[in-house]
Amino acid sequence: MYIGIDLGGTNIAVGLVSESGDILHKDSVPTGARRHYTEIMKDMAQLSVKVIADAGYSVEDVKAIGVGSPGTPDKEKGILVYTNNINFKNVPMRTEIQKYINLPVYIDNDANCAALAEAIAGAAKEANHSITITLGTGVGAGIIIDKKIYSGFNDSGGELGHIVIHMDGEQCTCGRKGCWEAYGSATALIRQTKHAAKMNPDSLINKLVDGDLDKIDGKTAFDAQRAGDKVGINVVNNYIKYLGEGLTNVINIFQPEVLVIGGGICKEGDRLINPLKEWLEIHVYCKDVARTQIKTAVLGNDAGIIGAAMLGRR
Amino acid sequence: MYIGIDLGGTNIAVGLVSESGDILHKDSVPTGARRHYTEIMKDMAQLSVKVIADAGYSVEDVKAIGVGSPGTPDKEKGILVYTNNINFKNVPMRTEIQKYINLPVYIDNDANCAALAEAIAGAAKEANHSITITLGTGVGAGIIIDKKIYSGFNDSGGELGHIVIHMDGEQCTCGRKGCWEAYGSATALIRQTKHAAKMNPDSLINKLVDGDLDKIDGKTAFDAQRAGDKVGINVVNNYIKYLGEGLTNVINIFQPEVLVIGGGICKEGDRLINPLKEWLEIHVYCKDVARTQIKTAVLGNDAGIIGAAMLGRR
Repeated sequence: MYIGIDLGGTNIAVGLVSESGDILHKDSVPTGARRHYTEIMKDMAQLSVKVIADAGYSVEDVKAIGVGSPGTPDKEKGILVYTNNINFKNVPMRTEIQKYINLPVYIDNDANCAALAEAIAGAAKEANHSITITLGTGVGAGIIIDKKIYSGFNDSGGELGHIVIHMDGEQCTCGRKGCWEAYGSATALIRQTKHAAKMNPDSLINKLVDGDLDKIDGKTAFDAQRAGDKVGINVVNNYIKYLGEGLTNVINIFQPEVLVIGGGICKEGDRLINPLKEWLEIHVYCKDVARTQIKTAVLGNDAGIIGAAMLGRR
Repeated sequence: MYIGIDLGGTNIAVGLVSESGDILHKDSVPTGARRHYTEIMKDMAQLSVKVIADAGYSVEDVKAIGVGSPGTPDKEKGILVYTNNINFKNVPMRTEIQKYINLPVYIDNDANCAALAEAIAGAAKEANHSITITLGTGVGAGIIIDKKIYSGFNDSGGELGHIVIHMDGEQCTCGRKGCWEAYGSATALIRQTKHAAKMNPDSLINKLVDGDLDKIDGKTAFDAQRAGDKVGINVVNNYIKYLGEGLTNVINIFQPEVLVIGGGICKEGDRLINPLKEWLEIHVYCKDVARTQIKTAVLGNDAGIIGAAMLGRR
């Protein structure tokens, strides 16, 4: 068994996870992200101890602790080098957690953990090579090669959301212009929907939010599209194109066996996935070979805990 | 020792290569690319036999034959699935070569072979993870992870030249619009130089080619830039930006220890590499970690033979 800790800006979620990636028991506490890191690490360790005990086991039954954190890890040293979601710089996660619980501690980026979870216990469990893309505030990504996370020689690769797909285009939070994230994230879809609503005040989009554009979310354009609204159809079609351009790039680069798409927007199901598949069928570089399967993520919010736990399985 | 065969549209080059990647002896014959593939494979095998004999060895001294070919291989079956450079479709290279010489035969894409050569015996030999980009007719690329070629589950990944960097931009030969190759290849630089010369008939570029724009090559804009010509400076600056956008993408994705740049344009040396390094310093995603080293390729045309030979080293 392994402990998986999913460190988020809002909550710390901890789970006891089996060898095959099933959560046996889980619990969470607020992160209190503004506190000193020593306090946050203490809570992570103490909640781990509690989860093990509440599940009826002891620390000796557990092989390792894995932590999925936003930002850039130094995996070898067990340090979180940097994240801007929580105010961390060079936080010695391994050392701090081991003050309270005597187990090996492994850390990795949260998007990588989600991809590892889908690769071991989720939508890509049959595949050796898979990529998981999460459409949320940004475009998160994890690259799995031979069932292991690939993140380059300095642990900071896999930033597929920061591939520029439109030079000199939309400003991205990373400083560059035209990143895929600035077109394909849920945040970008909301911006695109708001812009269309502003330009077309008579559209169904405006009615759906009672004229209050701040109520627009990642679902609004799809709702308008479903109802046959021209503006909604247009917003969704453009968004599919933006996703399609980025996903075609990812497949041309990696040709993974399975490409998993996660995040809230995936609730649209076939309305999202089918046109994407059509796009990829046409645009992917090599057509004479076996094709990448496109799937939606299946583990939802548990992916963070499961993937973090699986860091200990080596 | 290994035999490496570099199959090109013009010549078949064969070399006898040591375990560490040194060429002991080499020879070449014209490809005669319009002939039936059985004839071409026969020449590849017979030249291999000749190279071994001319070097004073016998077939028993050789462990394996590797073939670097344009196009998409099926590595397991030893088949070249498709290439448009030579008119090949599902060519059983392994079987054909083994009719004439009884050795294991491995095949891979030529750009992957060049990257493997640089990784084992060239500019990236100190690195476990490296990427080699070749700026030529297209933008070729090979991904090396743990000293091995990565090309996805269907052997057709690694097409870094076919990352769209400018949606709806320049037409690419692959059918998409805005691929990096359509901006960053030598072909693209020549197109950009011609366009600038047409728009600015008084520029030094026009004088350098005696007004005959068909004489423009990958060096012309750099020559004009060196002489202080404004139009030349502008063409080179834009080209550096196009390369920089693509290379930043590649580093954000892979964070390789070493990124090798090859192709004729590399003869520009520091005039090309220094501004690229400055671009990358500013634009790469994560700045708090060890940085990728940028190097120029050192093996030149021999990379094809050496990399193909190294396919047998497993």
